[in-house]
Amino acid sequence: MTKSGAVVSAGSVGITETRYLDLPGSLRLDCGRDLPEVRVAYETYGTLSAARDNVILVCHALSGDAHAAGLAATASAPGTRDGFAAEDRDGPAGRALGWWDGMIGPGKAFDTDRYFVVSTNLLGGCRGTTGPSSMNPATGRPYGPDFPVLTVADMVRTERRFLDELGIERLAAVAGGSLGGMQAFEWAVLYPDQVDTVVAIASTHALHPQGVAWNAIAREAIMRDPAWQGGRYYGTGRAPAAGMGVARMVGHITYLSAPALEDKFGRRLQEGDDVHYTLEHAEFEVESYLRHQAESFVGRFDANTYLYLSRALTYFDLARQYGDGSLQRALEGVAARTLLIAFSSDWLYPPSASHEIAQALGALGKEVEYHVIDAPYGHDCFLLEEERQTPIIRRFLDRDGEGQ
Amino acid sequence: MTKSGAVVSAGSVGITETRYLDLPGSLRLDCGRDLPEVRVAYETYGTLSAARDNVILVCHALSGDAHAAGLAATASAPGTRDGFAAEDRDGPAGRALGWWDGMIGPGKAFDTDRYFVVSTNLLGGCRGTTGPSSMNPATGRPYGPDFPVLTVADMVRTERRFLDELGIERLAAVAGGSLGGMQAFEWAVLYPDQVDTVVAIASTHALHPQGVAWNAIAREAIMRDPAWQGGRYYGTGRAPAAGMGVARMVGHITYLSAPALEDKFGRRLQEGDDVHYTLEHAEFEVESYLRHQAESFVGRFDANTYLYLSRALTYFDLARQYGDGSLQRALEGVAARTLLIAFSSDWLYPPSASHEIAQALGALGKEVEYHVIDAPYGHDCFLLEEERQTPIIRRFLDRDGEGQ
Repeated sequence: MTKSGAVVSAGSVGITETRYLDLPGSLRLDCGRDLPEVRVAYETYGTLSAARDNVILVCHALSGDAHAAGLAATASAPGTRDGFAAEDRDGPAGRALGWWDGMIGPGKAFDTDRYFVVSTNLLGGCRGTTGPSSMNPATGRPYGPDFPVLTVADMVRTERRFLDELGIERLAAVAGGSLGGMQAFEWAVLYPDQVDTVVAIASTHALHPQGVAWNAIAREAIMRDPAWQGGRYYGTGRAPAAGMGVARMVGHITYLSAPALEDKFGRRLQEGDDVHYTLEHAEFEVESYLRHQAESFVGRFDANTYLYLSRALTYFDLARQYGDGSLQRALEGVAARTLLIAFSSDWLYPPSASHEIAQALGALGKEVEYHVIDAPYGHDCFLLEEERQTPIIRRFLDRDGEGQ
Repeated sequence: MTKSGAVVSAGSVGITETRYLDLPGSLRLDCGRDLPEVRVAYETYGTLSAARDNVILVCHALSGDAHAAGLAATASAPGTRDGFAAEDRDGPAGRALGWWDGMIGPGKAFDTDRYFVVSTNLLGGCRGTTGPSSMNPATGRPYGPDFPVLTVADMVRTERRFLDELGIERLAAVAGGSLGGMQAFEWAVLYPDQVDTVVAIASTHALHPQGVAWNAIAREAIMRDPAWQGGRYYGTGRAPAAGMGVARMVGHITYLSAPALEDKFGRRLQEGDDVHYTLEHAEFEVESYLRHQAESFVGRFDANTYLYLSRALTYFDLARQYGDGSLQRALEGVAARTLLIAFSSDWLYPPSASHEIAQALGALGKEVEYHVIDAPYGHDCFLLEEERQTPIIRRFLDRDGEGQ
């Protein structure tokens, strides 16, 4: 049954289509408000087993969407593949490749020959799931800043409700990197008897203060842009592209490591061997790269969604939410086996955070595996280091493999 | 004569006044243009010896000014003391304390009982020395973006011309941190026979690519603010305060270390034990701190000066400018003894950069001393760790002390 250890020929899930599902009833949120209508955008890969026991929920990070694997059915849809050099690896014929295509598919880490992989766009998103750019049924206009402020738990409850509609009760695994990993932890705490395993990559139980600061700066950049208009920019012909660009640049540099930038760009100038004495033009290659990143992101992402998701991930704090300040207490009820992967050069979600989780789970006698992959590309590694994550994840998910 | 090794009672230089000097003639710049009129704002502390051999030129960093020590004569002038907790240490009676007051004065690192310390506002500055907010004699209006793009060498040539006017030929030392240290290196290369010693703290021979990126992001934040108006905001009643605020926040976080933020703020909330579900209000203490830093900076600093100085410091690259890519070749002509101090937690101007300079000077057989101070406050340490820098600097400057 298992292929782990053997050479597998990893393939693609092929052309995929994002579908949409409207949840029945309203959704109660942590802030105390109810969302009356919630639509969820999703994709699935592989086949649901008769026993419905082979489901893996994949959770995306700040800038992802439901299109996690395969090639988009719509040729024109922009992809959300992120990370260093992701743009070099786009799919053929202009079809966007899923943001975690390297990890999901036949023979891959999340093996669609065996598992039914479900990916949804987050609550608050801008890629099909209800978010601040969605229509507010109370006004007939987009929510904008009237959209309720969300938590990771709100996202997870939405995922729970969504899976109910699909008739799925248990998860063989819930997996994600960064904010996606936060959702995985939240699942294990909120629904301990419904989660067999957690795969949390480059994630944390609570963003450290410098990470809180970077997120705050990114949000300030957006909200200080006059085109943000207090969040009511929809339909005005103006959007906070300038601020979003700066937010994206800040994010991008925090996702990478200093050595990776040194390696890729050094101090190389754009043109010639000397500087051109200009303020406005990009002189260094890294400056030009940042502008390019900003521009492509602004075109595909909603500024308010950025604000809401950034806020939710800075709020996330398992110890505060569930443990009266104690991470160990917060994790007491966890029943899932947990796999933690961190990357040596990730300074935004550093290995120390994963180590703290591993220690807390270990002290509680829970099954936990913790790996630090020595890799240079910072936080973006979770999107890039597929080859080294794959055997770890396959072995972990493969219960048969345990006894080998 | 020397007090080093003895317990000294360090004092203040007292109340100081910034003076102004107009350089005769025009100034030829690296970009090929001439600046027709250059005014230099400066302060001096201590007494010039009859032999004029006791001069220390102190060079400030991006946000400093000529007021390096003592209490400002004008009670209302805002101080440029920077760094973590600098605001807690302001002078009495609302008089701004110089930005390096802890280092300059009787008995201090730069001992005014012995040395004549000169501090100027940089070329391109906004605190009295000619810069983009100065009047362009050709138009009668402020230069704005018509001000020529500067280099660190341009700043140093201005300092050289300024000292000529004071009748000072040689420097016993040229000292500075960060961009100030770059000026010190530039002095040693441009005027090797006029500099006895270099004291370069938390500095580098060339900013690493991540530093280039942070500076680019800060400049983007300013230039993308519509109120920047292509740099012609003077007299319009609007200034790019929003963008400057974001630039300052980015700068501020890069000046600090992650552990320092953890130590000072942790994830403490502003109010109560739970979050308040708000996008616009600061929830975490670190968020509130950042806003405060942004606000106070915007009020005292010119956005165009920020752009010009940031540009100059990213251009600075001794190996490119003077060594055909080789740092060692660039330093071949240096005659000064060099003291390098770096701080273990400084990730913007990391110890590795100072180490490279020490190695290059050492390989050339030059006299060089290199210290790494283990301290938690990141780049800001050069403004904060006076106590630990002081004995190192005093011993280094004290030629008599060498033989002890």
